Amino acid sequence: MAYDAIETPFGKTNKIIGGSATYVAYAASNFVRPINQISIVGYDFAKEEMEALKSRGVSLEGVKIIPDKKSFFWSGKYHLDMNTRDTLITDLNVLADFNPVVPDSYQGSEFVMLGNLAPRIQIDVIKQLKKRPKLIAMDTMNFWMESAMDDLKEVLKMVDALMVNDSEARQLTGEFSLVKAAKSIMKMGPKYLIIKKGEHGALLFHGNNVFFAPALPLEDVFDPTGAGDTFAGGFMGHLAKTKDISFENMKTAIIVGSALASFCVEKFGTERLKEVSKAEIDARIQEFVQLVQFDIALV
Amino acid sequence: MAYDAIETPFGKTNKIIGGSATYVAYAASNFVRPINQISIVGYDFAKEEMEALKSRGVSLEGVKIIPDKKSFFWSGKYHLDMNTRDTLITDLNVLADFNPVVPDSYQGSEFVMLGNLAPRIQIDVIKQLKKRPKLIAMDTMNFWMESAMDDLKEVLKMVDALMVNDSEARQLTGEFSLVKAAKSIMKMGPKYLIIKKGEHGALLFHGNNVFFAPALPLEDVFDPTGAGDTFAGGFMGHLAKTKDISFENMKTAIIVGSALASFCVEKFGTERLKEVSKAEIDARIQEFVQLVQFDIALV
Repeated sequence: MAYDAIETPFGKTNKIIGGSATYVAYAASNFVRPINQISIVGYDFAKEEMEALKSRGVSLEGVKIIPDKKSFFWSGKYHLDMNTRDTLITDLNVLADFNPVVPDSYQGSEFVMLGNLAPRIQIDVIKQLKKRPKLIAMDTMNFWMESAMDDLKEVLKMVDALMVNDSEARQLTGEFSLVKAAKSIMKMGPKYLIIKKGEHGALLFHGNNVFFAPALPLEDVFDPTGAGDTFAGGFMGHLAKTKDISFENMKTAIIVGSALASFCVEKFGTERLKEVSKAEIDARIQEFVQLVQFDIALV
Repeated sequence: MAYDAIETPFGKTNKIIGGSATYVAYAASNFVRPINQISIVGYDFAKEEMEALKSRGVSLEGVKIIPDKKSFFWSGKYHLDMNTRDTLITDLNVLADFNPVVPDSYQGSEFVMLGNLAPRIQIDVIKQLKKRPKLIAMDTMNFWMESAMDDLKEVLKMVDALMVNDSEARQLTGEFSLVKAAKSIMKMGPKYLIIKKGEHGALLFHGNNVFFAPALPLEDVFDPTGAGDTFAGGFMGHLAKTKDISFENMKTAIIVGSALASFCVEKFGTERLKEVSKAEIDARIQEFVQLVQFDIALV
């Protein structure tokens, strides 16, 4: 949970709430409640934002508030193509001393999403879980591949699903072909691998199976911040609601995640996610059906 | 029809046959015959290659042979990512004086594919057709946008379907969003627009409808030369076989084209296309079904 200041070709925000856990919670709470949130914030994190999360069934028992420090702050500016961005400011603040503690009331959580953070912290959280969850998914990034590869390899052995983007999959394995990269990553531990390709959609790998979900072609991408975390939240939310971790159901979960992500980018930060309705989500999932369904009877 | 010399990270060829019309003919002849080919070659174009085309039902009556000149020759080298390439040599040779003549026996062709060439030549071919075909599709490239935009706008008004890649769609319209670019291009004439995104698949636009076909995730792309033309040949071949130009059937045609293109890149030049069987094509189309089909009953 964090504060972001974002500049895109369409506008600029002051500090608005962000952070992986915030996006995951907003997306997943459309499908399952409670969301057992674990995070850390500073004295500056607005009470109204905490209340807004609580009102969506997000438990904040695992969110530590540090009274004399500020929340993590990130500021970035997107380029015209919206695919690349410059980081202007990264103030770790409270995140510098983050040692997450899993509250007793969270024990027994069946679906665990580990946001992008030091792999050592991800390992520590998994070790605190008294009962092995039905599914542990994790995100990571190139920074940890460069600075903590041994830890990263250790946590990869402990999780069921990894979510990375295409360049991260290539960097992690040294393979340019995503099919080869996927095979290599699945040997490192995760039985399921999701490779996110932004505007080009996402691939799900499991054994010899591959599923491809497109991104919805949009007239405007207003702000891509949080789209990947929103995707993860929709994906995990659908799985947790259905309690079905078959490959077939994971395909559906990826479509659900893609639908949620397509809302996220329509406005700044979490703004669109806060207001999106069940009917809008259902209608958008139907758009995905229209987008990819075809008839091969004539071939 | 041309000769190419190709270098990829996987190997290097001497002169091998290539050219848009060659790839289109090899792909389309899997679905419909005869293919009424119009092209120009020099004295050096191998008789065995002509015979190989004839044996697949490709009529060469419209292929002019210039006895004292060489065939068009292109030489290129692909970069490691296989998405970009350097042109090493372009020898226009016979193509410098190409004034295609539509033979009488070709009149009445219902499905016409205009390969990437000067828009003035594309216009000239259309004007020679005594009966308006059921569907005219065309390819073009950025070079004509820079050197012959007025002619290009003229031919766009005369065709039903345009096939371009994403950067060409952006350049043609000045729109970065492909959805906006598509709307703008459809106002220029074509009722159907196919935007090819290489390894990221292809989009079909028609009115307010959008269809997305993924590219098959491949372990290795051996040589991308001709993949776009092969896609076009599979697309047009399926439409010509079924004589159905509804949006629904065009979706299927795009999957067929994508399947053919996925074979093309497996070996150098036309090599794989020459040997691919109907059973292999059918099996690969089924792979596309597996790749994108999902169940939303659970959402």
